[in-house]
Amino acid sequence: MDKFELHPDLQRDGIAIGAFPLSLVLLINDSAYPWFVLVPQRAGIKDAIELELADYRQLSEESQLFSIALRQVFAAEKLNIAALGNMTPQLHVHHIVRSSSDAAWPKPIWGFQPMRPYASEEIDSVRQRLAAAQVESLVMIDG
Amino acid sequence: MDKFELHPDLQRDGIAIGAFPLSLVLLINDSAYPWFVLVPQRAGIKDAIELELADYRQLSEESQLFSIALRQVFAAEKLNIAALGNMTPQLHVHHIVRSSSDAAWPKPIWGFQPMRPYASEEIDSVRQRLAAAQVESLVMIDG
Repeated sequence: MDKFELHPDLQRDGIAIGAFPLSLVLLINDSAYPWFVLVPQRAGIKDAIELELADYRQLSEESQLFSIALRQVFAAEKLNIAALGNMTPQLHVHHIVRSSSDAAWPKPIWGFQPMRPYASEEIDSVRQRLAAAQVESLVMIDG
Repeated sequence: MDKFELHPDLQRDGIAIGAFPLSLVLLINDSAYPWFVLVPQRAGIKDAIELELADYRQLSEESQLFSIALRQVFAAEKLNIAALGNMTPQLHVHHIVRSSSDAAWPKPIWGFQPMRPYASEEIDSVRQRLAAAQVESLVMIDG
């Protein structure tokens, strides 16, 4: 079994802000939406059904815990949860907070407009808001 | 508690081909991709986290069983699994078989091109292929 390494695309676009027992939590560096991905730390997995059953269930639970936190922290009107991975062949599950006032609404966000990177203090703010939510089994990673 | 009724958008675009204990399985009437949605038969749910815990876990299991069947039946290179629902506010989880030779690859399919309806014999063929796969706890609905 190969060792898990974060795909270069996710290293480029994401900022590691926390870890569940299975999944790394990345903040995608696009200030247009609160946009996160959960990346199960298992090597060689493209689709969720390739995970072992215990991992599949753990991912589902981590997605649920994280989604509940997002709704609370960002007062989410709607969540978009998606595992696509056509371009980046490492399983990663998008968790995007959507609002009827956001740039792409009601369209999907992928490819809608170029990413707008955060200022570093905005990243700190996201970290702090999520840390304050004390999400069960999520360990925050300091910046 | 209101009674579950399938949203008009999903009635318009989808063909009911089966039912799990929780979710209705619709074939989306776009022959460009094998594209299905799972719709938990619960009223008033927009996001998966609004489901009761037992239903949330059941949906996750039904998605897994259905995904495994799709990979087998359609020799899927890649699956796209997504709960978006910005335009149709009834929880429905897309399960799309993607291939590097499909029209939208590697982009997401939503909004890429107008839907191309199936011929009726093609719908029968999809039904038959899924029925032959004998997906656990999926009851097929005849056309």
